[in-house]
Amino acid sequence: MKYSDMVIRSVENPSLLKDVRERLDNLTKPLGSLGRLEELTETFCLARGTPDARIKRKELFVFAGDHGITEERVAPYPREVTVQMVNNMLSGGAAVTVMCKNAGIDYRIVDMGVEGFFDPHPLLISHSSGKGTANFRRGAAMTAEECGRALEAGFELGYGTAADICAVGEMGIGNTSSASALYSLLLDIDPRTTVGRGTGASDELLEEKRRIIAESVMFHRSQWDKTPFDALKRVGGFEIAGMAGFITGCAAKGVPVVVDGFISTASALCARRMRPEVAGYLIFGHASDEKYHKSALSEMNARPVLDLSMRLGEGTGAVLAINIIEQALNCYHQMATFTSAGVSNRAV
Amino acid sequence: MKYSDMVIRSVENPSLLKDVRERLDNLTKPLGSLGRLEELTETFCLARGTPDARIKRKELFVFAGDHGITEERVAPYPREVTVQMVNNMLSGGAAVTVMCKNAGIDYRIVDMGVEGFFDPHPLLISHSSGKGTANFRRGAAMTAEECGRALEAGFELGYGTAADICAVGEMGIGNTSSASALYSLLLDIDPRTTVGRGTGASDELLEEKRRIIAESVMFHRSQWDKTPFDALKRVGGFEIAGMAGFITGCAAKGVPVVVDGFISTASALCARRMRPEVAGYLIFGHASDEKYHKSALSEMNARPVLDLSMRLGEGTGAVLAINIIEQALNCYHQMATFTSAGVSNRAV
Repeated sequence: MKYSDMVIRSVENPSLLKDVRERLDNLTKPLGSLGRLEELTETFCLARGTPDARIKRKELFVFAGDHGITEERVAPYPREVTVQMVNNMLSGGAAVTVMCKNAGIDYRIVDMGVEGFFDPHPLLISHSSGKGTANFRRGAAMTAEECGRALEAGFELGYGTAADICAVGEMGIGNTSSASALYSLLLDIDPRTTVGRGTGASDELLEEKRRIIAESVMFHRSQWDKTPFDALKRVGGFEIAGMAGFITGCAAKGVPVVVDGFISTASALCARRMRPEVAGYLIFGHASDEKYHKSALSEMNARPVLDLSMRLGEGTGAVLAINIIEQALNCYHQMATFTSAGVSNRAV
Repeated sequence: MKYSDMVIRSVENPSLLKDVRERLDNLTKPLGSLGRLEELTETFCLARGTPDARIKRKELFVFAGDHGITEERVAPYPREVTVQMVNNMLSGGAAVTVMCKNAGIDYRIVDMGVEGFFDPHPLLISHSSGKGTANFRRGAAMTAEECGRALEAGFELGYGTAADICAVGEMGIGNTSSASALYSLLLDIDPRTTVGRGTGASDELLEEKRRIIAESVMFHRSQWDKTPFDALKRVGGFEIAGMAGFITGCAAKGVPVVVDGFISTASALCARRMRPEVAGYLIFGHASDEKYHKSALSEMNARPVLDLSMRLGEGTGAVLAINIIEQALNCYHQMATFTSAGVSNRAV
């Protein structure tokens, strides 16, 4: 299926929800006492379209890309860290790859436009649109064609997944700047509010980053056509567009997708603005320590699963959340019922 | 070792902490970006007394006991649910046992004084002090001898563990009443504040529960000798004393212990009041939805790992938190360093 032809099934299904609810309420525990685990079970079953949904295969996609805005000295790490970290992921030394290996989650790294050369690698997928985006301070980060191609590539990966649940994360020096600009444009928020320290900007660097992003947003705000696609094209990035497409592809396939942190959530916001039906397939893995993330989540009425003061990206928060979702489903499928265990239900 | 002879090593160790910190800071991630995962790694290594601490074996102990206060109709479930749920745990149908099996955590159920008869079972340890405590509305829940014996039994289990990390949970109809009374006595808080719905009291039942616990606390407040042991004896329970002993035993053995929810935290409070050095060995697994739990944690300067609106007990929150701690240590031991991966460190 192509992005343009996609159909996304609405997750609303009162009779399915009733089945899931009944099963949850018969398990040997006080009503509702598994809290968010019960909500996650409902979300998962509704997205999968069956009350007997299970997690067998789990998959993480990490989208990587470089950013022209790094010319403006907005990040404390040099731009070449993107290509170096992709290589580190391919050899299994990055945080998210360590977590995936220990959690039985398959992972692939998608080069959406990293400046650098990669040898072929079984875990690497190439959809490169070039050596990083253009600097969005003075123009659009991507052409409409580049942005559309990145969306489409991500969509096909999501739609092609054979997993029961996916996680999405990213790598790209400079991409908190892009995400901050996107939140500012799409949610109509002062960019000084949406800009944070990213990978760890000093006070001085943060001030400069704020100034540059505010200036860029002001420039684009006067020109954009108010569509989410145009915002994405103007201030997004190859990996951000790729993730937006991926999320949409998972939804079209009927696969729930766990969104990672600050940057992935910006992609989820774009995806939801383009196709609101995507919302029912999203689980927000964690609240990042990056300054504006919690506000962005609350603007989106999203409640993250975890809050561990992390601000690493890569998919780390999404991967940790998958364990919670798996345990929720383990309880749902493997716990005894009041009847089967001979446990008395409430008396009063 | 006996409870009375125990020595608890102080976890303070600046040079060990420096080693752990250095290793964390050399991993391929922005400084501090793994947030609480880095803190948990520090806590774990300090408690184990080595910068190379690892988790190989994990063990949960569920302490079970009945409560005389159930005569006062404080719980929506009948008292026999305690024995039924212990049997459900032994046959693997309870939430916490499902989670343990899926997470590779060994578990044992400790009968500290459940009203009922159990056939011998490899997962069941018997330290029964009788058929439930006395009703603490009109007198002490336990004699000093019973309370001491329960503490000692728990201590020996903790001190005897061969695991690298333990989790502690409980089962006992009526035990939120005990825990609420304990918080009220030990923290000098109005009992109306510390009483919540437990397994799901209706408005009417909650009001009655409040009245009964307030009356009981008033009675004991006028008589107790201000020691944590006397509070435990007066309004605690066999399983609550057992957990306090267990926590202390883990600390004496140098094993970090993950505390579960509202009731386990009351045991941890008793343990800390009896032996403040225990504090360095405690990790609080989650913030329960039981009303006073978050306040109790903040009174104890404790920040829980998870907040999933659960209120089931059994050890469920502690077991979920262990996965996060394991992933923290996986990152610590398995991630590449900036040098090994050829990744540039920060430029500015």
